Amino acid sequence: MSRGLLVVISGPSGAGKGTICKALMDKKPEVHLSVSATTRLPRPGEREGESYYFLSEETFRSMIAQNGFIEWACFCQNYYGTPREKVEEQLAAGRDVILEIEVQGAMQVQSKFPEAVFVFVVPPSLTELEHRLCGRGTEEPAVIRERLKTALWEYSNIEKYNYILLNDSVESAVMRLAAIIDAEKMRTERNAEFLTEVFKQKKGLI
Amino acid sequence: MSRGLLVVISGPSGAGKGTICKALMDKKPEVHLSVSATTRLPRPGEREGESYYFLSEETFRSMIAQNGFIEWACFCQNYYGTPREKVEEQLAAGRDVILEIEVQGAMQVQSKFPEAVFVFVVPPSLTELEHRLCGRGTEEPAVIRERLKTALWEYSNIEKYNYILLNDSVESAVMRLAAIIDAEKMRTERNAEFLTEVFKQKKGLI
Repeated sequence: MSRGLLVVISGPSGAGKGTICKALMDKKPEVHLSVSATTRLPRPGEREGESYYFLSEETFRSMIAQNGFIEWACFCQNYYGTPREKVEEQLAAGRDVILEIEVQGAMQVQSKFPEAVFVFVVPPSLTELEHRLCGRGTEEPAVIRERLKTALWEYSNIEKYNYILLNDSVESAVMRLAAIIDAEKMRTERNAEFLTEVFKQKKGLI
Repeated sequence: MSRGLLVVISGPSGAGKGTICKALMDKKPEVHLSVSATTRLPRPGEREGESYYFLSEETFRSMIAQNGFIEWACFCQNYYGTPREKVEEQLAAGRDVILEIEVQGAMQVQSKFPEAVFVFVVPPSLTELEHRLCGRGTEEPAVIRERLKTALWEYSNIEKYNYILLNDSVESAVMRLAAIIDAEKMRTERNAEFLTEVFKQKKGLI
């Protein structure tokens, strides 16, 4: 059985990657959506193992020390990370795994899993992104400026991704994300087993 | 407007690439299926400009001399080739172009259009291919052996292709071919224009 595909969905916050990933689960329920771990406290309605795995700082740090994360980062004094074990398990079982993570984390994954597929989700335009980032209308201009700077840093890494997924509408974006996953499975370099089989059969034929 | 995608569908004869390409036209009528030129005589029912462009040997040779073919070859004393002009026209107009050609021709296209997408169509197994090649039951064993040798040479080039498309059923293969085309359009390296636009917009934002 061939190993599952690791698909990293990333891009600036406000681009809509969370919504796309949720909709993908409806379309491709056989895919495993990885759940991140965090040290921040649960918000009302958030459930252990669904929204996040909620860990103590001590546990999180000891997992870092044991190479227990594929990627991790610290935002606003809270740790966030992708636990390695579950992801490795699912991939080994031939199941495709989706990581929905920040650009910073995606860059860490790329150095460890160069065979993974990297998809950068963008809103139809940067102006649109600006609207999405400022949309709540309650933030200080300085906060908004900070967010935009982060988004622009994120965009500066776009060329390290394999695909650019324009989030013009969720329905269309999900269809195209599914096409990316289907197409990647057919790439020649992912079909070494099949090639070996062909060359084995060759000998019997002439 | 961005340039169309050049998609080369190739693989051993008997793998079913012709059937897949025809079915793709029903699914994606906006795509242009290139018509080959040949010097062989039309068979009953074949129409000029549909099955082939039927050319005299003189015309064909003068087109070769003028670099009028993207790829060409001589089989059984007849010339076959892909006229360049129409393909270039369609690509420039932003329309995707499908070439359904032999492996030998595909290798010529690869050296001239490295940005093209190369899809190798295979039947579910080599044994299956053997059945398809020998299926008519009327050929000499020597002819069949010759065909199998050709097929095996063709397989030996499979690693130069981007995708392996298993023709387990026409319907499923066409769906997956459509996914390849959709996915390729999102590849970062094909979205240089979009990236330029993003970086232009950046300046206005901070």
